[in-house]
Amino acid sequence: MDTFHIVLDLAGTFVFALSGGMAAVKHRLDIFGVLVLSFAAANSGGITRDVMIGATPAAALSDWRYVAVSLLAGLLTFYCYPFINRLSGSVLIFDAAGLALFAVTGATKALAYHLGPVPAALLGMLTGIGGGMARDILITEVPVVLRAELYAVTALAGSTVVVVADGLHLSSAAAATVGAALCFGLRFLAIRYRWRLPVANGE
Amino acid sequence: MDTFHIVLDLAGTFVFALSGGMAAVKHRLDIFGVLVLSFAAANSGGITRDVMIGATPAAALSDWRYVAVSLLAGLLTFYCYPFINRLSGSVLIFDAAGLALFAVTGATKALAYHLGPVPAALLGMLTGIGGGMARDILITEVPVVLRAELYAVTALAGSTVVVVADGLHLSSAAAATVGAALCFGLRFLAIRYRWRLPVANGE
Amino acid sequence: MDTFHIVLDLAGTFVFALSGGMAAVKHRLDIFGVLVLSFAAANSGGITRDVMIGATPAAALSDWRYVAVSLLAGLLTFYCYPFINRLSGSVLIFDAAGLALFAVTGATKALAYHLGPVPAALLGMLTGIGGGMARDILITEVPVVLRAELYAVTALAGSTVVVVADGLHLSSAAAATVGAALCFGLRFLAIRYRWRLPVANGE
Repeated sequence: MDTFHIVLDLAGTFVFALSGGMAAVKHRLDIFGVLVLSFAAANSGGITRDVMIGATPAAALSDWRYVAVSLLAGLLTFYCYPFINRLSGSVLIFDAAGLALFAVTGATKALAYHLGPVPAALLGMLTGIGGGMARDILITEVPVVLRAELYAVTALAGSTVVVVADGLHLSSAAAATVGAALCFGLRFLAIRYRWRLPVANGE
Repeated sequence: MDTFHIVLDLAGTFVFALSGGMAAVKHRLDIFGVLVLSFAAANSGGITRDVMIGATPAAALSDWRYVAVSLLAGLLTFYCYPFINRLSGSVLIFDAAGLALFAVTGATKALAYHLGPVPAALLGMLTGIGGGMARDILITEVPVVLRAELYAVTALAGSTVVVVADGLHLSSAAAATVGAALCFGLRFLAIRYRWRLPVANGE
Repeated sequence: MDTFHIVLDLAGTFVFALSGGMAAVKHRLDIFGVLVLSFAAANSGGITRDVMIGATPAAALSDWRYVAVSLLAGLLTFYCYPFINRLSGSVLIFDAAGLALFAVTGATKALAYHLGPVPAALLGMLTGIGGGMARDILITEVPVVLRAELYAVTALAGSTVVVVADGLHLSSAAAATVGAALCFGLRFLAIRYRWRLPVANGE
C-alpha cells in the first residue's frame, strides 16, 4: 500500500483503538486491560485481513507503527477519558470512523493482493467489522454489527466505491476518500436517525 | 479438491448458513445481521482450516461461490423463515448436516495439503465445529459443541473414515459419502435420543 | 525451534490444557467438551502465533505431540479432577504457568521468523494470552486477561527478557528460563496479593 493508504489505515487503527479503550474504561478494566482492548479493537480487523489473504507476518505485528498508534490511543483513553467521552458522546462515533477507514484500506489491500472485485469488497467489509466484533466479544456483548442500525452495509458501500473505482482506473486516493466519507456518513445518519433494516417475522 | 468435494463443501456452506440465519432470526436481527451470521456460520470453519494449513487466500473469499451460497441461504432464511423452520424443526438439523459435510471436506483438503492422518482427521473435526462455534459466540451463547449431546466426536468419526480410506487407497467419493452419513446419522440419533457422554465429578 | 524450546512449548500446552479442562469440568461439560476446551486453551495461542507469522501448517496441527499432550491433559483433568484441583487450588495457577511458558516460546519463535524485537515481544505476549482468551470466550466469560490482576504485563515482561537476551547474544535457554520464571513469579504474586493496576475514572 502507498503512503496515503497507510495513513488511512493508521487513522483507522487509532479511532478503533479509542473505541476499544472507551469500552474498556466503561467496563472498569485496569490500564493494561484498556491497552489490550485498544489493541484488539484496532488490529483484529487488519490481522484477520492479512491472515486471510496470506500477507504474513501481519502488518499489525511487523510494522511497529500499528502497535504504537494502538497503545497511544489506549493511554489517551485511560488518562483523558472524560475529555474523549465529551468529544464524541459515544464509542459508536469512533467505531464508525474506524469502520469507514478500514473498509476502504481493506479493499485496497485485497486488490493489491490480486483478489477479484467481489472478494475485495467483501474483505473491505470484513476488515471494517472485525475490530468492533473482537472488542464486543472480549467483553461478552453481542457485536455491534449484529445489533446496530445499518452497519455492515455501510462498510460494504465504502469498499464497493474503492473496487468500482479500481475497475474504472480512477484515482485510488479520491476513491478512498469518497468511499470512507460515504460509509461514515451513512453510519452517522443511521445512528442519528435510528435507521433500521427490516427484521424477519420469526414468530 | 475435485468437483465432487467442492459440491459437498458448498452444500455444507449452504446448510451452515441456514443454521446461522435461523439463529439470527430467532435473535431478531435485521436482514444484514442475518446475512452476516449466515456468512460467519458458513465460512468460519473453512476459513480457519485454510488459514491453518496456509491455503491462502482462503477459498471462502477467493471463490465467489462460497459468498453467493452463503448469501442465498441467508436471504432464504430471512424471507422464508416459517417454511424453513417447519422443514427442520430446529437449527440443529442444519447444523448437523453442515458438521457432517465439513468434517469430510476438511479432512480431504488437509490430506491434499500433505498433512498426516491424525492432523487431517483433527482438522476435519475443527472445520466441522468451527462454523457453529462462530455462530454461537457471535450471539454470546456457549457453543453447541460444548453443551450438546455427542457432537465433536461425530465429526471426528466422519473425518476418520475419510483418512482411513485415503490410507487404504479406497475411493475418496465413497469415503466422503460414508463419512458424512456416519457423522450425520450419529449426530441425528444423539439429538433424538439425547445420547450423552459422561460428565466428570467436579464437586 | 530447538529441542529445549519445544519442550517448553509442550509444557505450556500441557498446563494450559489442564486449565481448559478444569474450566470445562467446572461448567459440567461432558468428556468431549472437556477435550475440546483443553485443546482450545492449549493451542489457540500457538495457532494464532503461527498463523500471524505465516508458519503454516500450524505446529499444533502438523506436530502430533501438541494434540497428544492436549488430549492427555484433558483426560487427566476429566478422570482425576479432585486430585488436580487439590494440587493447584485454582485454574489460575496452571494458567499462569502456561502464560509464562508461551510468552517465552512465542517470542523465541517470532525471532526465529525474523520479526523485530518489539513485534517479537508482543507476539510472545499474544501467544501467552491467546489460550486463556479462547478458553474464557468459549464458556462466555470475560477473558481473564481483561478482568484479572496483573496479567498481560507479566507475559510481556517474560517475552521482553527473551528479546533483550537475543539482542545481547546471551544464551537463549537461560533467557527462556529467566523470562518464564519472571512471568510466573509476577503472576503468582499478583494472584496472591491481589496486585492491581489503576482503573480509569470512567464516571
